[in-house]
Amino acid sequence: MDFFFNQPQQVVDQVLGSLARLAPLVMAEPGSAMRILARADWHKQQVAVLSGGGAGHEPSHAGFIGKGMLTAAISGEVFASPSVAAVLAAIRHCCGAAGALLIVKNYTGDRLNFGLAAEQARREGLDVRVLIVADDIALPDAPRPRGIAGTVLVHKYVGYLAEQGLSLDEVVKRAQRFAGQLMSLGMALSSCTLPGHPIERRSAELGLGIHNEPGAHQVQPVDAADAVEIVLGPLLQQAAQRYGDEQRFIVMLNNMGGCSTQELAVLADEVLSRIGVSRVALMLRPAPLMTSLDMHGFSITLLPADDDYVEAMHASVAAPAWPGVYEPHAVQTFAVSVDSNAAEEVGAQDAAVAQAIERITQALLVAEQALDELDARSGDGDAGSTFASGARVVARQLHAAALSTGEPTRLCDELGQLLARTMGGSSGVLLSILFTATGTAFASGKAWQQALDEGIARMQHYGGAQLGDRTMLDALIPAVAALGQGLHAAAIAARNGADYTATLTHARAGRAAYVPEHALAGAVDPGAEAVARAFAALAET
Amino acid sequence: MDFFFNQPQQVVDQVLGSLARLAPLVMAEPGSAMRILARADWHKQQVAVLSGGGAGHEPSHAGFIGKGMLTAAISGEVFASPSVAAVLAAIRHCCGAAGALLIVKNYTGDRLNFGLAAEQARREGLDVRVLIVADDIALPDAPRPRGIAGTVLVHKYVGYLAEQGLSLDEVVKRAQRFAGQLMSLGMALSSCTLPGHPIERRSAELGLGIHNEPGAHQVQPVDAADAVEIVLGPLLQQAAQRYGDEQRFIVMLNNMGGCSTQELAVLADEVLSRIGVSRVALMLRPAPLMTSLDMHGFSITLLPADDDYVEAMHASVAAPAWPGVYEPHAVQTFAVSVDSNAAEEVGAQDAAVAQAIERITQALLVAEQALDELDARSGDGDAGSTFASGARVVARQLHAAALSTGEPTRLCDELGQLLARTMGGSSGVLLSILFTATGTAFASGKAWQQALDEGIARMQHYGGAQLGDRTMLDALIPAVAALGQGLHAAAIAARNGADYTATLTHARAGRAAYVPEHALAGAVDPGAEAVARAFAALAET
Repeated sequence: MDFFFNQPQQVVDQVLGSLARLAPLVMAEPGSAMRILARADWHKQQVAVLSGGGAGHEPSHAGFIGKGMLTAAISGEVFASPSVAAVLAAIRHCCGAAGALLIVKNYTGDRLNFGLAAEQARREGLDVRVLIVADDIALPDAPRPRGIAGTVLVHKYVGYLAEQGLSLDEVVKRAQRFAGQLMSLGMALSSCTLPGHPIERRSAELGLGIHNEPGAHQVQPVDAADAVEIVLGPLLQQAAQRYGDEQRFIVMLNNMGGCSTQELAVLADEVLSRIGVSRVALMLRPAPLMTSLDMHGFSITLLPADDDYVEAMHASVAAPAWPGVYEPHAVQTFAVSVDSNAAEEVGAQDAAVAQAIERITQALLVAEQALDELDARSGDGDAGSTFASGARVVARQLHAAALSTGEPTRLCDELGQLLARTMGGSSGVLLSILFTATGTAFASGKAWQQALDEGIARMQHYGGAQLGDRTMLDALIPAVAALGQGLHAAAIAARNGADYTATLTHARAGRAAYVPEHALAGAVDPGAEAVARAFAALAET
Repeated sequence: MDFFFNQPQQVVDQVLGSLARLAPLVMAEPGSAMRILARADWHKQQVAVLSGGGAGHEPSHAGFIGKGMLTAAISGEVFASPSVAAVLAAIRHCCGAAGALLIVKNYTGDRLNFGLAAEQARREGLDVRVLIVADDIALPDAPRPRGIAGTVLVHKYVGYLAEQGLSLDEVVKRAQRFAGQLMSLGMALSSCTLPGHPIERRSAELGLGIHNEPGAHQVQPVDAADAVEIVLGPLLQQAAQRYGDEQRFIVMLNNMGGCSTQELAVLADEVLSRIGVSRVALMLRPAPLMTSLDMHGFSITLLPADDDYVEAMHASVAAPAWPGVYEPHAVQTFAVSVDSNAAEEVGAQDAAVAQAIERITQALLVAEQALDELDARSGDGDAGSTFASGARVVARQLHAAALSTGEPTRLCDELGQLLARTMGGSSGVLLSILFTATGTAFASGKAWQQALDEGIARMQHYGGAQLGDRTMLDALIPAVAALGQGLHAAAIAARNGADYTATLTHARAGRAAYVPEHALAGAVDPGAEAVARAFAALAET
């Protein structure tokens, strides 16, 4: 299974059926075998705007139905024009005294079938016109350029004009000018696959239509910048010929189906850079707008940014697939506020606290190899070196008299900052959280033990571990709980807690959670061991 | 070149850079090496809503910045958490007296880095809270479910609450309840490819995180219906356990990156069918919302449809990537109006006209093989049989006295309908357009010749061919122009026009446009030949 489809012949009806159940639309009765969706809130007060064609271009065309855009859309099978009868039925359903405009992409099947339906409707007395869109510039000598993604902009513009209540004559006149000014060009890295067909990818091509026909040329873009250059080059050249070098544009970047959202953002960046932000009056949000199934490609459409056009693109619309527009601008930056503690002088010193820290750091440096060996049983064997690297940096600051050993709050802050910046690993961040949160609690007037409880609670909140999860908390929590009975009691509690972890064969947090039980049996958790050794060192002071 | 990227290390900056130039956002100065985007219109009046994490989830997270959703987003490298310093800088930029809530997906790196930044900000006196989202139900026994696509709904809900001006305490309380009720599950047909890495596709898996880690199980869906069943099954089972069988839901269908818009619509149809439209209170427009680069997969998120939640999802929002919501309903249909002429009785008969038609149809039946042979030189050799099939049907109706030979307008209509329905090919539609448009002109009071001119103009409008393009027009246009001098003159003009096509070696319309010149030299266009033979037959009457 390569694609999320059921039977190939179900695809189009499922696509339209889902939209008919989601959006405020009405659908031709299924028994008619006609695939027509129309606005449920349509009352024939303005010019009706109809479009359609083969399926496979989702969200075109039905996704653009809604007040301010299309009145209805008629769908054929994948890449096949709808029947004359279906187009006529849609016209009959939508066209009132104000008349109707059919927007048709320049492909023979669509021209003829929409055209005949229009003539039949006119024979019935309905005022129906057909606008043929031919925006593709891939084949400069072609007498009949294809209609491709730019058609979406025509939908928007004509829907806007109709919503303004203009006469059909006026709508047609303006729409013809608009459509005549559109320029589109597409490129794909590979062709698309029709539902039910085997995957056969062609290589990169420029100048594709939207029905998987081969492109005008094979190309070999080397990267995204090159790809955009290859597509924008001919577009800008033609634009310069038509409108001069100063023209500002409305720009559309269309995902042909297979680009990831990330790729599309990279392409958008290249498009903006190459055209120049100041020449892009308005850009649609890059999105899949006129796709060719899963084709891994994009198209760019340029249109002169007449005030009338810009206003039309900004106008509010109820069509769900309209992606919205941006007004591009230079990047606006804000200054990042630098670390507020960085420049502060060190605070008061306390010899006893300094001695305690000295002992703890020494103990952890001594323990490096033992902790690494413990860690090798359940992890990547670097717990000892991680704790040692933190200890080394703390010791260095201590020896440089750069720790405020006489001011507990500031000391907590300093340790929190140091460990976050230099110790690395999850344990560095967790210890930094412990010291930082403890310092905050201290500063708010809490007692040592309460402050530490608060710090531990924060470690647990962010780290997600509980007592018994085989982490350093198994030594730390009992140690802090015993602090009221003195440092020796705390050290004993830490040791007991650490030893208890050797009986825990099912780690629930940290990397040991992914290690088989037998590998853990009998081994003390290295984090808990480090805490036990630290408290033992502390108790000796 | 497999993807539209430049250097892998440029991807994230280009993604954010394009958005910074398109949307009304401010960006951390590039020199900071911090990737922060924030609302340009932010004035710290409400609770600030921050989120972020690794890149590769576009449009998450920056696409959801805007009034009513996120205040700012912090991005790391692809699939890597941003630094503590960057998160802290974002908090400092956005957090005012109302405080800030950080929305964090339940991955260790994000929890720790956002957590430490929050603690550092609290130490600075800022009221910052962290909400951890853990909506993935893929691993029912996991102590720490992952945060996946449901996080987007949290962004929307929290943004709505903040925009209402609620206190941080109230926002946190409600947001925790909301996040706790989310249930998400994902499936992919293949894994994703990191920028700069080779493509290595794993097979289909259920229960994926969003960082390309293997899913919980391998699966083998047979079609889209099966895929949705596999994903919705566990979700609905868990929903039933938590909320009973009657619960209505808010539903999100997320494109993980590689589904075409068409596939997504098929999946949406299956989701609606399987849950049942009446139980879906609200569904987001299916879209890429929380992607894993180009992963060809989808995830579904369910949330009980509390009134408060529904209202929040409906609330207007300035975030460009918010896809909008639908209120699903049963399909509403409209009756297709049947052909208005179908039931009409045949009109008056005229023997002379009937005889003329008889001769023309006979001439075209006689010409079948000759026209096929002419067509074989430039096309697929079926021009003769196409004209003959039309002639055969017209003759049959004539013999059944089912043509209104005494009423020119009705006759035109009848021929137009007959040829469209039965003759096939482009020429059938074009002749149908000719007769239909001519009939319309007739009915509006125009004379024969003017009416035919109008019909020909319509053929040209929809068919796109001009005189000299080597089509049936090359005989038809001169023949109609000569009608004023009688039928014989018209027949001679048609013959001359047809013969002239043998000198035209560059077809500009129809299928012959793709045929080399030497293949066309000396051969009369089969359509023009048919017209000449028809006029010759007409002149004999």
